[in-house]
Amino acid sequence: MAEELVGNVLVGQSGGPTAVINASVAGVVAEALNHSCIEEIYGSLNGVLGILNEDLIDLASESQQTIRGLRSTPGAALGTCRYKLKKQADFERVLEVFKAHNIRYFFYAGGNDSQDTADKISKLAQQQGYELRVIGIPKTVDNDLVSTDHCPGYGSVIKYISTTVREIAADNEAMGQGDLVSIVEVMGRNAGWIAAGAALAKRRDHPHDPPHLIYLPEVAFSTEKFVADVQRVLKREKYCLIVVGEGLVDADGNYVSAAEATDAFGHAQLGGAGDYLRSLVEQNLPGVKARTAKFGIAQRAAAHAGSKTDADEAFLAGQAAVKAAINGETDKMVTLVRGDGDHYTCETGLAPLSDIANGVKKLPRDWINEDGVSMNFQFLRYAQPLIQGETPLAYDNGLPVFAKLEKVRVDKTLPAYTT
Amino acid sequence: MAEELVGNVLVGQSGGPTAVINASVAGVVAEALNHSCIEEIYGSLNGVLGILNEDLIDLASESQQTIRGLRSTPGAALGTCRYKLKKQADFERVLEVFKAHNIRYFFYAGGNDSQDTADKISKLAQQQGYELRVIGIPKTVDNDLVSTDHCPGYGSVIKYISTTVREIAADNEAMGQGDLVSIVEVMGRNAGWIAAGAALAKRRDHPHDPPHLIYLPEVAFSTEKFVADVQRVLKREKYCLIVVGEGLVDADGNYVSAAEATDAFGHAQLGGAGDYLRSLVEQNLPGVKARTAKFGIAQRAAAHAGSKTDADEAFLAGQAAVKAAINGETDKMVTLVRGDGDHYTCETGLAPLSDIANGVKKLPRDWINEDGVSMNFQFLRYAQPLIQGETPLAYDNGLPVFAKLEKVRVDKTLPAYTT
Repeated sequence: MAEELVGNVLVGQSGGPTAVINASVAGVVAEALNHSCIEEIYGSLNGVLGILNEDLIDLASESQQTIRGLRSTPGAALGTCRYKLKKQADFERVLEVFKAHNIRYFFYAGGNDSQDTADKISKLAQQQGYELRVIGIPKTVDNDLVSTDHCPGYGSVIKYISTTVREIAADNEAMGQGDLVSIVEVMGRNAGWIAAGAALAKRRDHPHDPPHLIYLPEVAFSTEKFVADVQRVLKREKYCLIVVGEGLVDADGNYVSAAEATDAFGHAQLGGAGDYLRSLVEQNLPGVKARTAKFGIAQRAAAHAGSKTDADEAFLAGQAAVKAAINGETDKMVTLVRGDGDHYTCETGLAPLSDIANGVKKLPRDWINEDGVSMNFQFLRYAQPLIQGETPLAYDNGLPVFAKLEKVRVDKTLPAYTT
Repeated sequence: MAEELVGNVLVGQSGGPTAVINASVAGVVAEALNHSCIEEIYGSLNGVLGILNEDLIDLASESQQTIRGLRSTPGAALGTCRYKLKKQADFERVLEVFKAHNIRYFFYAGGNDSQDTADKISKLAQQQGYELRVIGIPKTVDNDLVSTDHCPGYGSVIKYISTTVREIAADNEAMGQGDLVSIVEVMGRNAGWIAAGAALAKRRDHPHDPPHLIYLPEVAFSTEKFVADVQRVLKREKYCLIVVGEGLVDADGNYVSAAEATDAFGHAQLGGAGDYLRSLVEQNLPGVKARTAKFGIAQRAAAHAGSKTDADEAFLAGQAAVKAAINGETDKMVTLVRGDGDHYTCETGLAPLSDIANGVKKLPRDWINEDGVSMNFQFLRYAQPLIQGETPLAYDNGLPVFAKLEKVRVDKTLPAYTT
């Protein structure tokens, strides 16, 4: 039994939002209410920026309805940032703010960089003898954090992408006569986790189902092979549906995109991987129509097609962070641990923050088929459980209603800080 | 009471698919089963192409489950086409096929061109004294058919777009610091109906809600005004969310797009209106990040965010087409007629096919605010009822399941035809 540490909680969100990062905050708040040693529950506005600027809000004063609503609200309700604590003075300031508000529990939801920040804050507190328990909460649609089976946010984005692929397929099936190429560009600057997830759209034992071709950053792109791939599919199917990760690279490791193009003013035009593939189709396959779709931010915010499993696990990760800290743990990140059984189960574990900060989980090469453009059963077995269940949303007047925090400010007690 | 006409039904789909055009086919089949004078219920594969090629299927042999599934299946289950009947021989062939299969009821779901085709077929049958009843069923996400209050397909596409705008807003709200521009490009080559529909994302009495700026083909685009608009919004809000119709034009009526750009190979790069606006932001507002999303085909196929009102009305339109024909009507299209009361109601009516074929319904100019970038209450009152209710989908293994027709072929009895 850990020694009781009486004080306040601070929770923050960092990096790109997802459909479920707010569910993790809801989990923190819900669990914190169970522990009498926790006196106040604060949120930091815009991640570490809010700490530096002493922009804290009182989460305990939000209604239960709002906190429940966070479980299905996309974006990052506390605000987020890409600011990286740089100088020693930044770290000192963080501790100063923590001391001023008696923050004894710090929970930070984010990706690698955010866990690195949490790690550094934790270590400085230890050096200074300020008792602080720091637990990270995993978050990223990119699914690239080590030590965890998967990351909250990933299940929802691939559920949205594979739902959309199935719908585009129904449309293309009606229109195509062996002369139609649809290209869907998805996120994933460094890894193909999201593009690979589109493979779930294919029904079992329906080899003709799309996506017909998946281009991943893990497989060096070759124009010759691409053109041959598309021709082969168009010969066999009414249409060719392609999913491409934005981070596609050639054999030299250079990003493949229409970036060398210029717009009407002579400015570089960042067409992206999807537009590049379209230009290759138009150039090499006369008479074939090619179309692109690019969902941008919409894919990571698509709560309306979110995975209930994903939202539940994000909430669970928030709860687990509080429980771990109450139990005396610090300088760790919550991990998701998959059970060994045939039936999917998921529990939480803990891993050192320093491990997370310095690692990147690659999509295993042996989960990609030899053709380089499709995923094998190992990937499908991995990804299938993550998209199960539909996140229930509240609707009003035909549209989903999302929670908005009241954001009651905590009084500032320190002089202003210049970042 | 019309004279009883005993014979077979043929239903076809034409033009771009929508989220609900299959619901209209389901309505035709469901209603046809009620009438003993209808002997067989056939479908034509790929619209008029299927008639010319005598590619007919037996819809009565499909399971009730499949027909019910069509009510929430996007795409066009019978296949569609953009083939336009050109020569007299084409029209003669259509009648030859109709006679060979005793087709006495022809229902065609589509837009202007399709209703024009149906009209010409109907008139030729009359000339030749072949008793045939032809009823068109409205279909188009573009919402540009005259004589009908609105078109099946439109409600679902604007529900999807406004849902997505609300989600992107939650993400941008978390990230923006007055330096973020999100641009969403939507369909609408000739009219701004779809872009305008994004205005529904704005909650009543929340003037800060996005979309902050809507650019419509109805309002001549000016770069100077655009840059000023964006600057004004960024000064006031954390971010600027823009919706733009793909058919944006300048004061001379030319499409505004990055079309003059060239890709790495010197080929014209059709960047589209969204990418063009992004290049204007980057060029004129240093330090501001701009991002685009372009949903392409996905928006018209998005049954997973479909409007129940829309799907129900599409079904109703299919039923109404059969009822009208049974009542002796011909050469008409089913229209949707809005009730006068405060509470939204919708009934069906009929309008001459020739009216539909030759008209285009413009977005009324007086529904656009004077600022040229937002919609007034008249538009909102018009559009709001069309997105009510969520289309219930069947899910399996985390993804929506769509109906697929068995497509049992009707025996061909005629020699092949060369189009």
